[in-house]
Amino acid sequence: MPNSFGKLFTITTWGESHGGTIGVVVDGCPPGLPLSEADIQPDLDRRRPGQSDIVTPRKESDTVTLLSGVFEGRTTGTPLTMMVPNADQRPQHYEEMRAKFRPSHADFTYQQKYGLRDHHGGGRSSARETIGRVAAGAVAKKILHLAGGVDIRSFVSRIHDIAMPETDAFPGFEEVEANPVRCPHAETAARMVERIKEVKKKGDSVGGLIETRARGIPPGLGEPVFDRLEADLAKAMLSLPATKGFEIGSGFGGTLLTGSQHNDAFESADGGPRPATNRAGGVLGGISTGADLVFRVAFKPTATILQKQRTVDLEGRETELMGRGRHDPCVLPRAVPIVEAMTALVLLDHWMRHRAQCGTFDFSTHHTHG
Amino acid sequence: MPNSFGKLFTITTWGESHGGTIGVVVDGCPPGLPLSEADIQPDLDRRRPGQSDIVTPRKESDTVTLLSGVFEGRTTGTPLTMMVPNADQRPQHYEEMRAKFRPSHADFTYQQKYGLRDHHGGGRSSARETIGRVAAGAVAKKILHLAGGVDIRSFVSRIHDIAMPETDAFPGFEEVEANPVRCPHAETAARMVERIKEVKKKGDSVGGLIETRARGIPPGLGEPVFDRLEADLAKAMLSLPATKGFEIGSGFGGTLLTGSQHNDAFESADGGPRPATNRAGGVLGGISTGADLVFRVAFKPTATILQKQRTVDLEGRETELMGRGRHDPCVLPRAVPIVEAMTALVLLDHWMRHRAQCGTFDFSTHHTHG
Amino acid sequence: MPNSFGKLFTITTWGESHGGTIGVVVDGCPPGLPLSEADIQPDLDRRRPGQSDIVTPRKESDTVTLLSGVFEGRTTGTPLTMMVPNADQRPQHYEEMRAKFRPSHADFTYQQKYGLRDHHGGGRSSARETIGRVAAGAVAKKILHLAGGVDIRSFVSRIHDIAMPETDAFPGFEEVEANPVRCPHAETAARMVERIKEVKKKGDSVGGLIETRARGIPPGLGEPVFDRLEADLAKAMLSLPATKGFEIGSGFGGTLLTGSQHNDAFESADGGPRPATNRAGGVLGGISTGADLVFRVAFKPTATILQKQRTVDLEGRETELMGRGRHDPCVLPRAVPIVEAMTALVLLDHWMRHRAQCGTFDFSTHHTHG
Amino acid sequence: MPNSFGKLFTITTWGESHGGTIGVVVDGCPPGLPLSEADIQPDLDRRRPGQSDIVTPRKESDTVTLLSGVFEGRTTGTPLTMMVPNADQRPQHYEEMRAKFRPSHADFTYQQKYGLRDHHGGGRSSARETIGRVAAGAVAKKILHLAGGVDIRSFVSRIHDIAMPETDAFPGFEEVEANPVRCPHAETAARMVERIKEVKKKGDSVGGLIETRARGIPPGLGEPVFDRLEADLAKAMLSLPATKGFEIGSGFGGTLLTGSQHNDAFESADGGPRPATNRAGGVLGGISTGADLVFRVAFKPTATILQKQRTVDLEGRETELMGRGRHDPCVLPRAVPIVEAMTALVLLDHWMRHRAQCGTFDFSTHHTHG
Repeated sequence: MPNSFGKLFTITTWGESHGGTIGVVVDGCPPGLPLSEADIQPDLDRRRPGQSDIVTPRKESDTVTLLSGVFEGRTTGTPLTMMVPNADQRPQHYEEMRAKFRPSHADFTYQQKYGLRDHHGGGRSSARETIGRVAAGAVAKKILHLAGGVDIRSFVSRIHDIAMPETDAFPGFEEVEANPVRCPHAETAARMVERIKEVKKKGDSVGGLIETRARGIPPGLGEPVFDRLEADLAKAMLSLPATKGFEIGSGFGGTLLTGSQHNDAFESADGGPRPATNRAGGVLGGISTGADLVFRVAFKPTATILQKQRTVDLEGRETELMGRGRHDPCVLPRAVPIVEAMTALVLLDHWMRHRAQCGTFDFSTHHTHG
Repeated sequence: MPNSFGKLFTITTWGESHGGTIGVVVDGCPPGLPLSEADIQPDLDRRRPGQSDIVTPRKESDTVTLLSGVFEGRTTGTPLTMMVPNADQRPQHYEEMRAKFRPSHADFTYQQKYGLRDHHGGGRSSARETIGRVAAGAVAKKILHLAGGVDIRSFVSRIHDIAMPETDAFPGFEEVEANPVRCPHAETAARMVERIKEVKKKGDSVGGLIETRARGIPPGLGEPVFDRLEADLAKAMLSLPATKGFEIGSGFGGTLLTGSQHNDAFESADGGPRPATNRAGGVLGGISTGADLVFRVAFKPTATILQKQRTVDLEGRETELMGRGRHDPCVLPRAVPIVEAMTALVLLDHWMRHRAQCGTFDFSTHHTHG
Repeated sequence: MPNSFGKLFTITTWGESHGGTIGVVVDGCPPGLPLSEADIQPDLDRRRPGQSDIVTPRKESDTVTLLSGVFEGRTTGTPLTMMVPNADQRPQHYEEMRAKFRPSHADFTYQQKYGLRDHHGGGRSSARETIGRVAAGAVAKKILHLAGGVDIRSFVSRIHDIAMPETDAFPGFEEVEANPVRCPHAETAARMVERIKEVKKKGDSVGGLIETRARGIPPGLGEPVFDRLEADLAKAMLSLPATKGFEIGSGFGGTLLTGSQHNDAFESADGGPRPATNRAGGVLGGISTGADLVFRVAFKPTATILQKQRTVDLEGRETELMGRGRHDPCVLPRAVPIVEAMTALVLLDHWMRHRAQCGTFDFSTHHTHG
Repeated sequence: MPNSFGKLFTITTWGESHGGTIGVVVDGCPPGLPLSEADIQPDLDRRRPGQSDIVTPRKESDTVTLLSGVFEGRTTGTPLTMMVPNADQRPQHYEEMRAKFRPSHADFTYQQKYGLRDHHGGGRSSARETIGRVAAGAVAKKILHLAGGVDIRSFVSRIHDIAMPETDAFPGFEEVEANPVRCPHAETAARMVERIKEVKKKGDSVGGLIETRARGIPPGLGEPVFDRLEADLAKAMLSLPATKGFEIGSGFGGTLLTGSQHNDAFESADGGPRPATNRAGGVLGGISTGADLVFRVAFKPTATILQKQRTVDLEGRETELMGRGRHDPCVLPRAVPIVEAMTALVLLDHWMRHRAQCGTFDFSTHHTHG
């Protein structure tokens, strides 16, 4: 099921960029959760086009409808279906792409894999697919927050070569949302916005890093040996369009330390034993330590640029393609809620898996019922 | 099934560091493959302890036995089971760990998750678990090579801050195996060996990077949208002990380029259209382009160091722990065959998934049989 | 994923009886299949209410819309989404069921499991859920027929105690559709219709048997040891509302024979070796023999009857409930296309699994690509 | 993973009839369960050959070894591996089967599917594969009993045409084990034993029915819509060698009743509301009601008979085969613990799934941790 994610809290997304609708089915949602469209729309608004002058001007309200799984305001434990219509479609913008492959886009590989493809706006490979992820993630975030006390915060920490200062603080939601680039360091954010506008003017694009922190995670989530928390997070992040790398805790930089510099000593604190430092990024052996989860994702510069590029056509002849359409000069500001959503999906799934296997079995005696 | 990996070519590993045996079941192996222990042992030998003076001196021959799934020298399509005995066990070395948590080890998180743990040599969290992965990976590598013409080469590209020069070449197997650190650049390898010996003397440890290249991969492997080839590779790599990061193609460095610098133009070549450069690392939209797969994995410095460290005990009291036992000052040389194995498992699984869905269905007419 | 079925050709259904829509996502559909709503609607028409005077008069056109996964008339290999609106809803009919459990309905168990439930028309437990199965099954049937030469025929073989004569013939589609009860033996069909009308008059209901035959299945489909073809079929059938039993080939009756009476000898025929008789029902050891697949499913009498029944309410007090609403006195006529759909889903899934593992790997030499 | 069963409590079996060992890996076992070989061996003893004069005289002690997953007498939450050696192998008995297909055996279909097969004793298709199921089932039964108060009892209710009287009683373990045929009705059991001895003398075989009852199951286990409790039980049972049918509660016979005769009224009792009768067999809409689970499985007469039979050889030529070897004239007595094991695996898996999704989430307020 290549269009599904999660083992117990499972989402299945469908739909193309220029088809009628984009949607998602969520299977396994705990019953009794108060839920309505008002819980989901805010994250979609953070993802939608046209929200600022540094993202694509494509006009989509991305208004979500909750089709099933809620009764009298509460989830019933049956599948939640959420759907968003595609509004602002301009298929004529894509006519040239019917025959020519866009460099560094999936057009080429979809054609190779399937022998045909929907060339309108990337079809299924469009980032519009992530609408379903964000909608499902909003549900997962609500469950984690209400029932688990877990909070997740993603933010842009670097655009191109403009990085915010490193910090161990957990950024406030308002700080992140205070500027269109979603970097909680105001001064850096201003420079990031300027850089994005510069490259946009040239018809070019930039990438960067999104960092995520999650707090309140109880120790013990994550599964040895293949379904480690960091392994499932890595998969979640590399399943997002335009991602090229993932690192947790000390990450790539940690390889420049020695073991004695890198190890996190344990200390005793009010809530029990805990790592005194957090180079691990919140996991050991694939299982949460109780410390904050900290990881970073690398996004490449947007592939679509408004410049002439060399390419080939369906017949394999070399040709040129001039980028057109309304595109993001930088995907990171809109990717922040997407990264948060995927993080929530991984955490909730692992929490449910933990509930299934561990904790409350009582083997001490014969019970009437469990 | 947290101890299983792969959807169609599925492996399930079992066993602890100090239990009787370590093993793996492979389900879904194509029938008819010529197979014996002689196909598997060489990769286990590259992984085993005691192979050189820069790895742990623990004495394990790691001799594999093939228990099922082969008849008269060929696979039957039924489960392959491979088993390796644990020989050189010294439980007395671990007595102190019964009550004290080793910093940056999984002892703490296993105890939190399960309420109990096998403290001998890390129990299930020991890297001995990877024996099953390497055995299964050897089967996958043989299938990919024989039936698919695909070759995979992993190698150490950096130890601590000692990096080999960047290159686009596909290193020869002999070059990689020519030195104990498994870096194909001889001069750099010599410096790496020296660095490892230095830190070993101090009872300290180092990490670094392993790079992997795979060639001969046909275009079209990988699944949108969640089971992208790079997503499954990222999961595979982050499921390995001591890994902290994954990047494909241009990776984290690619975020410092603009789109016009980063995009790979398409060109026409003898074998058809292909990317003229390979900043993508062999994938677009989660699907292979036909270019070489190129990715890197970050390994942290070994957590076990022969120095005194602060920690807590089972009762949560602060204490100190002095590392003992026979450990690797650097895990990368022995991790090279493990990374190759996981790469092979991902590629074969995706090849089988591709065979299932694409390619040879003929909808043009009514057929008697398919 | 309790709302998903199939490993490689996977369907996920959603929606409640009285919600806005009922739908299904199909993941893993082979690309290139010519497909439109016209391929799907006919089976929905065979399932829909109001099609004759022996089924519920509820007025639903059950008109399907294909939302995604098709481009210029062909499947793209990405998720197919199909949706049907719920039209004729009369929530007032169900007000009494808010507090009282209907005997032999799932109201009671949903309430116990989830702590709440949608009491309108059974909510998610309604047989309207099978709309998604029928829509997805229509796609599977088309693939099996076009690319595999496989045909599936389900039919009513017994209603209450009125059984058609046993036969080895493969009934024609027209014979089955020639009467509202979908029994290909005209004379028996007439008596069945009469019996259904009789019990309907009394506000009572009846059940019976549906038999299925499939021909053209190549030998070799099905997986040892858990995913046997008959095991997956049994699961598929017992996942349908109102089913209480499954038998394949000789079934329960076969237990009255001795081995020498029951065994199917092999004989040589034009197309190669084959079983001379078919008490096996088309499978041996979980794998298809090439003979016709033959199995039967037992459906209980409809639980909703228009008579007064003893029950309890939400507070556990004993009370009575008078059945209301528009219900089927017998579900079998409308269940025929549902059984066909589930059969097609199982067969196509196993065909795809077979393609993945067996058949065209060539281990004889090094190939450039596979 | 065709050799795996279960979603959260997952077993993977391996091994052939005449290979070195037969085994199973159990993944997902709750931690903290007291466990040793002594918990597992008794069920293997009930399954093993040579236990009485109505089963095969093959001499196998089937002594189990627990290889991993237990530390100081308790499960650790990591994979349990259990292994049994194959002792009494007589490959010479099978030499004729290399070239000739045994009627109604899987030899033919394995050859068709895989292009080769292990012809010794059925290889992987041998019922020796069920050793792993019984071992894993013993663990599941212990968990269900200790932590859940659930007990499972399977027994032979009919051999050939000799049936025990119907009863609603839950038979005692001692009654079932009081005779070699495992029928709790002593007088019927004696006649069954005699019948089996008769057919054995003629080199023939018989089949029959095994009934299973499980009590203590809490209401709410089972998942709509595909993973219904009865659907997963049906799959589990039809995945056993020699099974041809499954029915739950009223089953096939229930189709002869009208709805007003068949429905189970609800009544109020000490423990809360419950069905007053149990024609449902313990489930409604796929979910347990709290009443006893009751189902029956049909086993065909053993395919191997010591008589001359018509068959074909590998080249497709018609020939004859004379059954040899040491076989069961009736598989049912030894199948009783196998059916119990599969029942336990299904129930535990569903209990764990229920724990994951339902019950203890608290959405009423913000919690620190869950």
